Amino acid sequence: MIEYYDISGCYILRPWAMSIWENMQTFFDAEIKKMKVKNCYFPLFVSPGVLQKEKDHIEGFAPEVAWVTKSGESDLEVPIAIRPTSETVMYPYYSKWIRGHRDLPLKLNQWCNVVRWEFSNPTPFIRSREFLWQEGHTAFATKEEADTEVLQILELYRHIYEEFLAIPVTKGRKSELEKFAGGLYTTSVEAFIPNTGRGIQGATSHCLGQNFAKMFEINFENEKGEKSMVWQNSWAYSTRTIGVMVMVHGDNKGLVLPPKVSALQVIVIPVPYKDADTQGIFDACAATVVTLSDAGIRAEADLRENYSPGWKYSNWEMKGVPLRIEIGPRDLANNQVRAVRRDNGEKTDISRVFLVEQVKGMLDKIQQNLFDVAKQKRDACIEVVKPWDEFVKALGQKKLILAPWCDEEEVEKDVKARTRGEMGAAKSLCTPFEQPELPDGTKCFASGKPAKKWTYWGRSY
Amino acid sequence: MIEYYDISGCYILRPWAMSIWENMQTFFDAEIKKMKVKNCYFPLFVSPGVLQKEKDHIEGFAPEVAWVTKSGESDLEVPIAIRPTSETVMYPYYSKWIRGHRDLPLKLNQWCNVVRWEFSNPTPFIRSREFLWQEGHTAFATKEEADTEVLQILELYRHIYEEFLAIPVTKGRKSELEKFAGGLYTTSVEAFIPNTGRGIQGATSHCLGQNFAKMFEINFENEKGEKSMVWQNSWAYSTRTIGVMVMVHGDNKGLVLPPKVSALQVIVIPVPYKDADTQGIFDACAATVVTLSDAGIRAEADLRENYSPGWKYSNWEMKGVPLRIEIGPRDLANNQVRAVRRDNGEKTDISRVFLVEQVKGMLDKIQQNLFDVAKQKRDACIEVVKPWDEFVKALGQKKLILAPWCDEEEVEKDVKARTRGEMGAAKSLCTPFEQPELPDGTKCFASGKPAKKWTYWGRSY
Repeated sequence: MIEYYDISGCYILRPWAMSIWENMQTFFDAEIKKMKVKNCYFPLFVSPGVLQKEKDHIEGFAPEVAWVTKSGESDLEVPIAIRPTSETVMYPYYSKWIRGHRDLPLKLNQWCNVVRWEFSNPTPFIRSREFLWQEGHTAFATKEEADTEVLQILELYRHIYEEFLAIPVTKGRKSELEKFAGGLYTTSVEAFIPNTGRGIQGATSHCLGQNFAKMFEINFENEKGEKSMVWQNSWAYSTRTIGVMVMVHGDNKGLVLPPKVSALQVIVIPVPYKDADTQGIFDACAATVVTLSDAGIRAEADLRENYSPGWKYSNWEMKGVPLRIEIGPRDLANNQVRAVRRDNGEKTDISRVFLVEQVKGMLDKIQQNLFDVAKQKRDACIEVVKPWDEFVKALGQKKLILAPWCDEEEVEKDVKARTRGEMGAAKSLCTPFEQPELPDGTKCFASGKPAKKWTYWGRSY
Repeated sequence: MIEYYDISGCYILRPWAMSIWENMQTFFDAEIKKMKVKNCYFPLFVSPGVLQKEKDHIEGFAPEVAWVTKSGESDLEVPIAIRPTSETVMYPYYSKWIRGHRDLPLKLNQWCNVVRWEFSNPTPFIRSREFLWQEGHTAFATKEEADTEVLQILELYRHIYEEFLAIPVTKGRKSELEKFAGGLYTTSVEAFIPNTGRGIQGATSHCLGQNFAKMFEINFENEKGEKSMVWQNSWAYSTRTIGVMVMVHGDNKGLVLPPKVSALQVIVIPVPYKDADTQGIFDACAATVVTLSDAGIRAEADLRENYSPGWKYSNWEMKGVPLRIEIGPRDLANNQVRAVRRDNGEKTDISRVFLVEQVKGMLDKIQQNLFDVAKQKRDACIEVVKPWDEFVKALGQKKLILAPWCDEEEVEKDVKARTRGEMGAAKSLCTPFEQPELPDGTKCFASGKPAKKWTYWGRSY
């Protein structure tokens, strides 16, 4: 999937990973185009002036900004920043392009690289100094339109996680402490890694309110001829998605890839035996690939003669291909193939007459089973706690903690301070949109004040 | 198409330009995938050590490299370069990944941004400090395979220029002086801008030979068990293509976009008149868009009520939409529409019964006519010269000069020196693969030595 690079925190996305990214990209790009979002490309570089224009925003990003100070042998007159995100790159031009209400909504997106020079534990996909993402930036005449779009985009992110990557996520709202620097409110899809007991932010859809509009003077004349300020959103998902997938589905044999995103859905392996009809077996493998490919299934045969079938099985299991098809002498004689699922090892003999239908059915089942198993494991980690000592115990057990909370920023800071340690502090992950009932008089797990909502807490990536 | 940015030499690609890029990208990406090229993504950053490994290569790029020296408030231990191209980024890993002949060919491509901090006249699309491109990097066991691929890719580049952008190009080989720094030989497609009398390199497909393989130790064990070095190619085309298109087809009314790449192929404009059936006209416009869209034609209606039809005509002409459809009271009464071509202003009344076929036919004709006209203009600029004084005269007349040449590097340097001036020096553009006959005894236009080939010369971008 990846290769470590000679600059710490940078990684090479090899084709096996890149094709997963491309599969998600194709889906998302088509969906946002239906919503009339248009693609564009803004520069990689930001001048210091605009970068610093929104105070909270630059405070959030400043420590991670990489600076270009030289070209060739010469020093630049002014150092130039590399985008950590593009709000400040784009919005001076939104201010220029938006004049009247007919210029709204303005909906742009770009697929690009961004750089955040982080110093804490670089991890492939999850925390890398350069990563690929899409970033959507939209401007509306009214808050209602902005609010609606925030949730439409969040639903697309849920779709990518649950339907493509087979990963259950929770839709919710981030706390004031955890929201996007400079924005009004942040929604996200949150995943959870049972093995490590950590939550992970999957993708975010922010309503920026009018904060950036104020700093960058993005005004328009409304239908009544009055000067108004736009309402803005920004939203993004990145190659981090691939890392979440690796952690959620991987097992002790290697990767497990969901059929919908896997570059290869079926690997066909010949299993010749002594004096059996080897050529016939190889031909049947090639024919099987043609039949499956013609039906739109991504299939290949591994016909290398210098590796044993057993070696090939392990190799393709490690790479996570969802379905393996084996063809040996007995299969050839019976006009059948043997299909072996990567997710649960289940073996099925399939008549070559029904090959396409059966393989399609199995791929669907694998996709669904990966999701079901992941959801079961995730749900088994959820712990509802009320008083503080339960919280501390559940945190020690690496649980995904659902707790009643007073929703005060100082209390979250206090929780962080009280749980600081080798494993990292606990923080709020999100307040789920689907709220369980909160009986009157329920108290906040941390402050003892009246609770306002149920919120997920835990350690996170 | 673009917007100037507050950092000199950087430009914003607006959706109108980006969609042209996406149309070319969709074609090229599918074609290289058929050739078994796989997409990947390597980091933006290069460590100084590997950047400097190939001497000629770094000499060629060093003056234009941008350097990151700080992150946040801290200085980096070692300055890090931003890729001007990715040979030195990728090949250390090719060395690691390629072990035996079964690992070959290795064919990777990436769609990405690169940075060349040039100081000479930044020009949108043509010479910008950051641009988007694809870069393919392949490694083969034999020179024959590498040679073959160089030409296959060059043919795809010709296809993009001639079939998509409607721009005639010449396939040929670059001189030793103009070839890729560190490579063995460079082929290119060369376009010419009649208005400015300058040639422009359209895209390049390089055979790197074994130079990089030697420096980066990219070796493999061949079928006989012997250690061999790989043969490598690299090839790229960039957003410069869009700039060439703008210059070749644009006229005094604005852009002229070829139908195959235009975001919008047809703009439908209602032409209401006094007490005519305005609602009927607007409905007919909307219905026309639906009919065309259902047939796969990219069409939209401009139903804004606050602009006159005349204003809309100019606006969409300026944006270069290939075909305008007008619907007025008489058209409504006759169940017809009026189609107006952007390329030559030709007006045709079309019965709504045959709308789709006729519009498709007209779009094909526009595409072809743009190419034909461009070719005619380009060909009219070609001047065959033999002695030096003819060369100087033709250069003054901004011609595309085809001259017999001795193919010596010193002679090209001399031509550059002798033509240096305000307009820039002349240089060789390419030696076309299709060579006119070269009679025995023909002398080089510049040196008087025996000529070896016909070569195109001129000023260039």
